[in-house]
Amino acid sequence: MAAAAPPPAPTPAPEPATSLPETTPLFTRIRLATPSDVPHIHKLIHQMAVFERLTHLFSATESSLSSTLFTSPPFQSFTVLLLEASPTPFLNSTLNPNPFYKPITKLLNLSNPINDPESDTFKTLDGVTVVGFVLFFPNYSTFLGKPGFYVEDLFVRECYRRKGFGRMLLSAVAKQAVKMEYGRVEWVVLDWNVNAIRFYQEMGAEVLNEWRVCRLTGEALQAYGGSRQGKVRVGDGFDFFHPQKRWDKIRFEYKIDGFKI
Amino acid sequence: MAAAAPPPAPTPAPEPATSLPETTPLFTRIRLATPSDVPHIHKLIHQMAVFERLTHLFSATESSLSSTLFTSPPFQSFTVLLLEASPTPFLNSTLNPNPFYKPITKLLNLSNPINDPESDTFKTLDGVTVVGFVLFFPNYSTFLGKPGFYVEDLFVRECYRRKGFGRMLLSAVAKQAVKMEYGRVEWVVLDWNVNAIRFYQEMGAEVLNEWRVCRLTGEALQAYGGSRQGKVRVGDGFDFFHPQKRWDKIRFEYKIDGFKI
Repeated sequence: MAAAAPPPAPTPAPEPATSLPETTPLFTRIRLATPSDVPHIHKLIHQMAVFERLTHLFSATESSLSSTLFTSPPFQSFTVLLLEASPTPFLNSTLNPNPFYKPITKLLNLSNPINDPESDTFKTLDGVTVVGFVLFFPNYSTFLGKPGFYVEDLFVRECYRRKGFGRMLLSAVAKQAVKMEYGRVEWVVLDWNVNAIRFYQEMGAEVLNEWRVCRLTGEALQAYGGSRQGKVRVGDGFDFFHPQKRWDKIRFEYKIDGFKI
Repeated sequence: MAAAAPPPAPTPAPEPATSLPETTPLFTRIRLATPSDVPHIHKLIHQMAVFERLTHLFSATESSLSSTLFTSPPFQSFTVLLLEASPTPFLNSTLNPNPFYKPITKLLNLSNPINDPESDTFKTLDGVTVVGFVLFFPNYSTFLGKPGFYVEDLFVRECYRRKGFGRMLLSAVAKQAVKMEYGRVEWVVLDWNVNAIRFYQEMGAEVLNEWRVCRLTGEALQAYGGSRQGKVRVGDGFDFFHPQKRWDKIRFEYKIDGFKI
């Protein structure tokens, strides 16, 4: 799940100057991830788990990611966009000629160069550096009768934060949603992260304060979804009737489990 | 989004009786929906909007549902399971021989027959009655490195409520998740629906109280994802650099939009 801290208060735009201040250029690119990016994606997810202090919940491996991502065309299922950075322009030859997605590129002029202690770890075959990622997939609104996108994860490495990169990644998803005529982009935020919530609201997002996420996982999921298959027991609203048995041979007290949906 | 009211307090099991009380049998079946079910699905979604007092948000049409559902194999994307009921056993010939899903059947013995004022409206070609539906689709956990299911809607028509049908539908999704070795089943619930929350918790589900759903939709989505494509403006962290332009020809003040993800 994505957690975001806020941008600082906006500062007034500087007065036009006759000579521009010295800046450091940083070329950035958002492109579709491919299976060869899995080692970097795995490291990014682990860093996110560390940031959220949830490493005890982290069990993904490169193998599990490889076998579950990239199983369908982009945007039809789980999709990863990677954000890369380079001190020099991206060469045309390195632009991923993916027919599904034209990379988004942008030049930043930073007031200070970024010191990236992990630049070697996150170097790609193109010689550029992986900065962050967004993982999203289609969801569906029955009221609209059309799909949207759900953003599961949005992560930017620490030394690249507070430069608008998270916003760039989220914007790339919104742009793709508009392009595909999808109805919504949704994600979750921690309720105590008031600055992030304010930021999202200023962006025009609605925060649905009344809804709570419910999750069935681990042993509870196994118990609920797996352990009772095909059994018929008295007094249980969950058992399955075998159609090959004549119904009038099975009489059992049925506990009326009220469940109003 | 699914809203659920709670089951009543459990009553003690009756003492074994030598003669069983008179009951009314009701045969039920959960099966994969098909495109021919869209008119019934559309009516069910509208009833849900009425129940949630959200008809002002309802804009789905049979056409929009037909063009966006059933676009991929079941369980790979948006999937609808229908719950049907019949006073007589389902004939084998009417069982949907869908290779993706074996219908789940169950016999209920009700203490009172159900008076369904809309039985004609919800009659299928098989002569049985549509009772409710669940719409779900794969989601993804990066921490687990595997998919799960997200339940977008779960709805049972009014006269069939409080008989365990909602639970049957949710259980069918959980069963499918276990079968596919998925990691989670998730959904949302309204925070004031304390009885539903208790019911989910008793089922073993975790309620993630700290997370809030954020939604970008309508004009805000259009503005955020569509209106600025390809423009380069001064002092804006969202514009896209055109790679064909030489970077050193474009110098602009870059407002550092802090965004820590």
